[in-house]
Amino acid sequence: MKAEIITIGDELLIGQVVDTNSAWMAERLNEVGIELYQITSVHDNREHILHAIDEAFLRADIVFTTGGLGPTKDDITKHVMCEYFNTTLVEDVRVKAHIHDLYKDRPEALNRLTATQWFVPESATILPNRVGSAPIMVFYKEAMRRKGEEASYEDNSQVLIAMPGVPHEMKIAMTEQVIPFLLKTENEKRKDENGRQKNGIIHRTILLHGIPESKLAILIEDWENALPLSMHLAYLPKDGLIRLRLSTYADTSESEIEAQIQKLLPLIKEYLLAVEDISLEALAGRLLAQHHATIATAESCTGGRLAAALNARSGSSVYYMGSVVAYDNTIKEQVLGVQIDTLMQYGAVSEQTVREMADNIRALMHTDYAIATSGIAGPTGGTPDKPVGTVWIAWATPTGTEAQCFYFGATREREQITQRAVTEALVGLIKYINTEQ
Amino acid sequence: MKAEIITIGDELLIGQVVDTNSAWMAERLNEVGIELYQITSVHDNREHILHAIDEAFLRADIVFTTGGLGPTKDDITKHVMCEYFNTTLVEDVRVKAHIHDLYKDRPEALNRLTATQWFVPESATILPNRVGSAPIMVFYKEAMRRKGEEASYEDNSQVLIAMPGVPHEMKIAMTEQVIPFLLKTENEKRKDENGRQKNGIIHRTILLHGIPESKLAILIEDWENALPLSMHLAYLPKDGLIRLRLSTYADTSESEIEAQIQKLLPLIKEYLLAVEDISLEALAGRLLAQHHATIATAESCTGGRLAAALNARSGSSVYYMGSVVAYDNTIKEQVLGVQIDTLMQYGAVSEQTVREMADNIRALMHTDYAIATSGIAGPTGGTPDKPVGTVWIAWATPTGTEAQCFYFGATREREQITQRAVTEALVGLIKYINTEQ
Repeated sequence: MKAEIITIGDELLIGQVVDTNSAWMAERLNEVGIELYQITSVHDNREHILHAIDEAFLRADIVFTTGGLGPTKDDITKHVMCEYFNTTLVEDVRVKAHIHDLYKDRPEALNRLTATQWFVPESATILPNRVGSAPIMVFYKEAMRRKGEEASYEDNSQVLIAMPGVPHEMKIAMTEQVIPFLLKTENEKRKDENGRQKNGIIHRTILLHGIPESKLAILIEDWENALPLSMHLAYLPKDGLIRLRLSTYADTSESEIEAQIQKLLPLIKEYLLAVEDISLEALAGRLLAQHHATIATAESCTGGRLAAALNARSGSSVYYMGSVVAYDNTIKEQVLGVQIDTLMQYGAVSEQTVREMADNIRALMHTDYAIATSGIAGPTGGTPDKPVGTVWIAWATPTGTEAQCFYFGATREREQITQRAVTEALVGLIKYINTEQ
Repeated sequence: MKAEIITIGDELLIGQVVDTNSAWMAERLNEVGIELYQITSVHDNREHILHAIDEAFLRADIVFTTGGLGPTKDDITKHVMCEYFNTTLVEDVRVKAHIHDLYKDRPEALNRLTATQWFVPESATILPNRVGSAPIMVFYKEAMRRKGEEASYEDNSQVLIAMPGVPHEMKIAMTEQVIPFLLKTENEKRKDENGRQKNGIIHRTILLHGIPESKLAILIEDWENALPLSMHLAYLPKDGLIRLRLSTYADTSESEIEAQIQKLLPLIKEYLLAVEDISLEALAGRLLAQHHATIATAESCTGGRLAAALNARSGSSVYYMGSVVAYDNTIKEQVLGVQIDTLMQYGAVSEQTVREMADNIRALMHTDYAIATSGIAGPTGGTPDKPVGTVWIAWATPTGTEAQCFYFGATREREQITQRAVTEALVGLIKYINTEQ
């Protein structure tokens, strides 16, 4: 079963908003075994939306749209849907009651524009939007002829699901309403002749660090060439890490894909961080929690981003104590207690300074581990000796303190340099915990 | 002149990667007056890529592709381009020399897979990729017939520009190579019969806070209805802010759009933050720098994100001194000096606690302003009294300390609650600076 997403909104096409919805939806669809074939971003424009729906229905069984469901004049999706599915708007008393309830503490938000939100296309099935005023609309369509195929109306009808574009409304609707709705249909379809469930899509991801993509490809070339045709390997390098993803869209068993992973692991063990698709912060957090260890950070160039990574997950208060962001040198000295001589003699971006920062924050916050960063994120502030992209990181652990200098390159932007510093800080932490515990 | 972007990569369609490239490219294209009509994300699949290019050339003058140019087996874009444009790969000595130079300090990255990178399609114009191994490829195509139009070969040829998908490589290539390349052609085309330059696209954005979208729409309804047909208004709500964007794609003058803005401003003055498309952190930073004021933060629930926002921009070291992230209560007490009685009697999420946090960090870091946050980001930790989404924020200023309680709602996710807290913290700061200075 194939799906497509059409994201609607001029803001996407002038770059005012990054489309984070599609990736999130893609992940959810994948989890339930629905293949996402294409994502298309179009303008708030009648002809453009109509054309995109026509095109998507040539390829997909399920078409999602996001966006254009607000109460203001620029939002036209609902009207275009009425035209496409040849229906008209009617008042929906349940949606009306819900919107009144939603705004009961905010009377100024209940007005004649909001009132348009409880008029819905007559032929649509309405799923509730628990946290917003635009309901989710499901439209059925007689299955259209796919390109190169004879017309067939034996299958279920194709379906279009129109969702709000506000990310948290879309996410709650997708989780609570749309996925359960799709699964009911999907599970029925995915049984074989004997009523047994067939497998959907399987992905396995391996997280690696410290090897260039091309070197990795040569290292595992024989293994990759021997993969069955039903399996597909992808290399996903990002922020100094590589995710290797082995996928199968055919009806391959878990044990076949697992057997391939077991052949791969010995080849790459020296670069291996995890045999799962996990973020570095989640991996570090899990290790800290498992070992009942605590952590603090003292940050200069990462400016609080390492702290934010360590407390991003719910439950992080078990291991994450706190941080000092010592951007200015006086803070390094007065709050973190870095010796003024150290700063004068070696500078803020030096092994000596980050070591003191790490040791002192560990002592100040009484933690098992501490990480300190100091570097030149640029674009200004570089010197011939310490060019933009130079970052010192220190890890204070129960058995000692280690420091390392990284050079992330002057061609990277400020944001990428700090992001790479966060990556290396977490990778180092994971390695030290694994070594020591 | 219309453009489309085709992003190529399975990772986009299983949600492993968020496509941030398209929004960035869209913004750059807009700046130089090139309208982006559609963004399409497709699989690393020959037929899919070929079909998407065909479709895009029916609508657009310029087609960009990103992705699929790496040295590994899953990257097929270059081969598909050869097929589409009926050409073959040949060695390019300049690209070869560049790649050798690029990897001169990393011999392990120079191998037979990397060597495939200096083979380029014979008919393509090659633009250098200063920071990566995949060069930018420009293909010319005889202008195709657009839907519903007669064939015409009078215009310049259509063009396809294939770019790497790695964001920092794409950005540098776009800035240094592709935009200058396009402008050369574009400026010629945009002259009228008398050789005068015509206007491209104009957008004006206004940043608002503290009003629901529907109420705003009613407030400015008469103004909006009286807009000339050549102008288009969009409402872009996000994270508690609304961006109002007035656009014109036709040949409208700056002064016409400015006249409309001047009519609008008196209607919305009580919600106005800025008459430009600027981030809150940039706005706050600019105000601090203008007033030679400094700032520090003491954060609990925002966990370093407020610090990161304040030091995101180059030059922020002028006004941003540092932060203490006091996640654990012992840190609030021992590092920030919050009275143990305050924590015992009122709890960490209370007016009393954030006031002490703000006052104490201001004193500790000797700054003019300080912001403190403490809240329940969830999903656990809420009580009937202080449900998930409750956040106290305090602003310590040269003339006194103010605190306010926000409730961001239990339906929001952890990440959104902390993001809203950062937004409100910065909005408050901007207001206090504007009032006091």
